[in-house]
Amino acid sequence: MQTFFQYNWKVREEWYRWCEDVPAEELLRVRTGGVGGILHTLFHIVDVEWSWFRLLQGKPDIQESFDHYRSLELVRMLDATYRPEVEEFVFSWDDSMERRPFYDPQPDGSIATDAWGEVVRHVIAHQIHHMGQLSVWAREVGKKPVSANVIGKQLILPHTEKA
Amino acid sequence: MQTFFQYNWKVREEWYRWCEDVPAEELLRVRTGGVGGILHTLFHIVDVEWSWFRLLQGKPDIQESFDHYRSLELVRMLDATYRPEVEEFVFSWDDSMERRPFYDPQPDGSIATDAWGEVVRHVIAHQIHHMGQLSVWAREVGKKPVSANVIGKQLILPHTEKA
Repeated sequence: MQTFFQYNWKVREEWYRWCEDVPAEELLRVRTGGVGGILHTLFHIVDVEWSWFRLLQGKPDIQESFDHYRSLELVRMLDATYRPEVEEFVFSWDDSMERRPFYDPQPDGSIATDAWGEVVRHVIAHQIHHMGQLSVWAREVGKKPVSANVIGKQLILPHTEKA
Repeated sequence: MQTFFQYNWKVREEWYRWCEDVPAEELLRVRTGGVGGILHTLFHIVDVEWSWFRLLQGKPDIQESFDHYRSLELVRMLDATYRPEVEEFVFSWDDSMERRPFYDPQPDGSIATDAWGEVVRHVIAHQIHHMGQLSVWAREVGKKPVSANVIGKQLILPHTEKA
């Protein structure tokens, strides 16, 4: 579980760096699919990660709007602001939380019950899915996308022969 | 770990169904990003998942070419052929395999050592990333993409109040 978050944060940082030499109008351009733009997607990932963990913990979720975060610097700042709280949640995760119920009010007035383990996996997959969209838009910009490889990021150290 | 594979297989099946009423020329059209097309991506996901697990187990990896699988039916057939072996590997996974070393020859002649846990996460993230690309191309086709939500797929049953 934690490994996937470390992967996501590493890849996200690489996308921030990727954005550094892309003109702001390309980062803000409205595109086909997803939430419709490169910087908007990065904002959305940060916002959704934090919001889900707030909700699980019964804390109030502040609904941020991308209108207030339309620069790489502001998205990075929001991410840095949220990260300590997100990390605290992720690194306190243990298997006993997998099936803990989260009561999730639905638009139709009913209440769905989701397992926390499902919510945490949703947050992981949510970023990876949106990064796939970024990789298509990167090619539209004419720039090689950030690699999505998990392998080679030194996230898990293999046992040595002698171990 | 297994939950993510169940998620991936479920979403993959939904994409196959999504493809059923899309004209073959749209499924085969060369597109910007990724491996360059909808059906080619589905083939690639199936191929990569199977190949990695073959490699981990020291079994020979047969390099399939998309040229021989240029229809939805053929990709589904390949997936069905590979699935039992893939499932056997996934459902026999235990934590002792996380740091087992895989010796991975590199293009430059050196040998990288990857932890099995990293490879398995790579296979999971690989599909999710490529599905993100499909979601952009789906909008180009003018059809709503398959949902990437993990929540609501009944992958983990929450404890009830009484549990």
